[in-house]
Amino acid sequence: MITLTPQEKFVSTAIKKLKENSGSHSPSLFTLAHQFPDVKIKVDACFLSNPYASQLFFKFFQEEFQNKRNFENLIQYYPSQNTIIAQLVARHLDISAKNIFMGNGAVEVIQAVIHNFVKKKMIVNIPTFSSYYEFAKENIEVVYHQLSQKNNFNLDLENYLKQVEKEKPDTVVLINPNNPDGSYIKLTEMEYLIKKLQDVDNIIIDESFIHFAREEDNQIQSTVKLIDKFNNLIIIKSMSKDFGIAGIRAGYGVMNPEKVNHLLKNGYLWNLSGLAEYFFRIYIQDDFQKMYEKVRIKYINQTQTFIQKLSKIEGIKVYPSQANFVLIELLEGSTAFNFFNKLLLEEGIYTRNCSDKIGLRGEFIRIASRTKKENKKIIKSMINLFLDSQSKTNISINYPKFSHEQVRI
Amino acid sequence: MITLTPQEKFVSTAIKKLKENSGSHSPSLFTLAHQFPDVKIKVDACFLSNPYASQLFFKFFQEEFQNKRNFENLIQYYPSQNTIIAQLVARHLDISAKNIFMGNGAVEVIQAVIHNFVKKKMIVNIPTFSSYYEFAKENIEVVYHQLSQKNNFNLDLENYLKQVEKEKPDTVVLINPNNPDGSYIKLTEMEYLIKKLQDVDNIIIDESFIHFAREEDNQIQSTVKLIDKFNNLIIIKSMSKDFGIAGIRAGYGVMNPEKVNHLLKNGYLWNLSGLAEYFFRIYIQDDFQKMYEKVRIKYINQTQTFIQKLSKIEGIKVYPSQANFVLIELLEGSTAFNFFNKLLLEEGIYTRNCSDKIGLRGEFIRIASRTKKENKKIIKSMINLFLDSQSKTNISINYPKFSHEQVRI
Repeated sequence: MITLTPQEKFVSTAIKKLKENSGSHSPSLFTLAHQFPDVKIKVDACFLSNPYASQLFFKFFQEEFQNKRNFENLIQYYPSQNTIIAQLVARHLDISAKNIFMGNGAVEVIQAVIHNFVKKKMIVNIPTFSSYYEFAKENIEVVYHQLSQKNNFNLDLENYLKQVEKEKPDTVVLINPNNPDGSYIKLTEMEYLIKKLQDVDNIIIDESFIHFAREEDNQIQSTVKLIDKFNNLIIIKSMSKDFGIAGIRAGYGVMNPEKVNHLLKNGYLWNLSGLAEYFFRIYIQDDFQKMYEKVRIKYINQTQTFIQKLSKIEGIKVYPSQANFVLIELLEGSTAFNFFNKLLLEEGIYTRNCSDKIGLRGEFIRIASRTKKENKKIIKSMINLFLDSQSKTNISINYPKFSHEQVRI
Repeated sequence: MITLTPQEKFVSTAIKKLKENSGSHSPSLFTLAHQFPDVKIKVDACFLSNPYASQLFFKFFQEEFQNKRNFENLIQYYPSQNTIIAQLVARHLDISAKNIFMGNGAVEVIQAVIHNFVKKKMIVNIPTFSSYYEFAKENIEVVYHQLSQKNNFNLDLENYLKQVEKEKPDTVVLINPNNPDGSYIKLTEMEYLIKKLQDVDNIIIDESFIHFAREEDNQIQSTVKLIDKFNNLIIIKSMSKDFGIAGIRAGYGVMNPEKVNHLLKNGYLWNLSGLAEYFFRIYIQDDFQKMYEKVRIKYINQTQTFIQKLSKIEGIKVYPSQANFVLIELLEGSTAFNFFNKLLLEEGIYTRNCSDKIGLRGEFIRIASRTKKENKKIIKSMINLFLDSQSKTNISINYPKFSHEQVRI
């Protein structure tokens, strides 16, 4: 069992306090480093992004801004307005710009959609990304649909539809792949669901992690192409994860033109920065897309290898994931709190303690896939931690959980 | 009188269309340049920012980001959350962080405040920055208080208070200095107003241009320091103008802690980008502030000289301004449309045609103060334009507006 030294306990409590002040989200690396200069983070495995895509963007970025003046213009002048940037993205997605609402990060789109279009009741699957229920205003009833742990958190379609029929919500939320468990709904299943959900006013589908999922081939299986057929679809997309640019704040929503107009009538004029506009101008270029596709596949392959290797570590259960992170459950009496802090303070690995996630029963940690080298370091550190805890257990004669054979390894 | 050639008319109409699609705001230089590559803009005098402050920020920026890795981290990782950045700004403003709501540009703060705190009725002085009334939801009654042109758009305090007493709004908006006319309310007058307005739920004071105003000395006369005394104050501040960083999107609102909490409960988690966070970390540094103060005073001096020189041009009336722009009225029959387009297409100077501003009766153009060199170019171009129009008038025998004496000059 993983336990903390008195000093580790002290620091852990202080970090917990910082986290509590950050609401339902982990404090950023910057905040953490600033407030705890002694905590040396070697791998940020809380952070959900493709590091190879970040590098690719930096490459384009540096070429463009070798001319210092270009970058100064980006900082100095107003960026283009929402609808202008939507026109760029529309060309790439091959849909009408009238269907696109650009966001200062996906979280702004979530906020706008939840505040403006949910009427009375929404169903949210749990565990989930907390903003979906946190942003619901006081007069909104949030009903939870519990994803089954036994079923690896996969959505049971008929069971789900039954609850929808019973509850009659005006809005449903489907995150695909789901955060924090990485479970995935196939495109054919999604189409089936959408057809069955035509009485629901808003079907919100969050595809922020869809670039990391694959079915038979490597193609991205987005529901964006269905927007003309189903008027109640709202697809939300973060660019932070797949493109590794969380600091820029860039995302969008795809929805019917009446909804886009409703939002734009109420503000969101210059909600994208000059840097975000620049990102979208790069994003739609063919040469960027070609190179991006390569780093996307490379990252998926490495992530799946990482998950397989994690599965072999004793003492944890690793849930299958089609996202760029994986949910693990601690089986042998360790708490997520102790595991999270021990991994951070002794090994410098920052993960996501999922104790605050509603709909998770047990001790859960979410670990992001990073570079190949970092993933190796994560695996090695976790093995260290368990070996270490076992040898300590060996010393403490009162603790009966490990057999002799396990300790010997 | 300024007239357009057929070709100029054609381009002007196309630009007008682009403008109409941009709502009540001018299209950005980037959008304009993209859609009209033939239109060569030499001076962007539509753009309200201190160019010397931009340069100062670039200097700090380049020093920091000589280490490429630092900049990559800024793009790659999530920025700190709203409340963390508020703590930085609080230290600089010498107020509590609980009073500060950070915004993705001041326009986000305006949107949040108007949507969340205006109950039934608000009074907005006109002419004004259109977002204040545009963001009002359908059930809000907007009452206009007309600033008197004869009085150089200065607010007549008693007249204003009389209208407030009569209308009983829950919210009033005071932009100081006012946009687009540059009229200014002194701090003592503002304090008088605030005391008289204690029955109003929300006194919104937009101080986005306050750094350009001066009274007896050069000190910035902000009402922020009154926040503890008056619970109904909401001070909104853009950083785009005084610091010349519109592309970053950075602003904040100062209001009572209950209002800040109300907004944060509803979202606005990571609404500032990594670059915006970096800006605020620079902004609060003593050495930056010292250097900034110098470029602020330099720019104010140049702006006032620019306004004085403009005042000497015949055919226009120049209104006094305490902002970094000036409102001019065309007196001799030229339309704002023709003047705006002629100045753009023949001289490459992009100004703000104020024809769409409610509360302005006549032909008005707003001109921003830029660098000393650019301001000279603006003056020279405007003199050219008027001379040119006069000589053309001389040729067209049917046109009686100018006396012989004027034409001879």
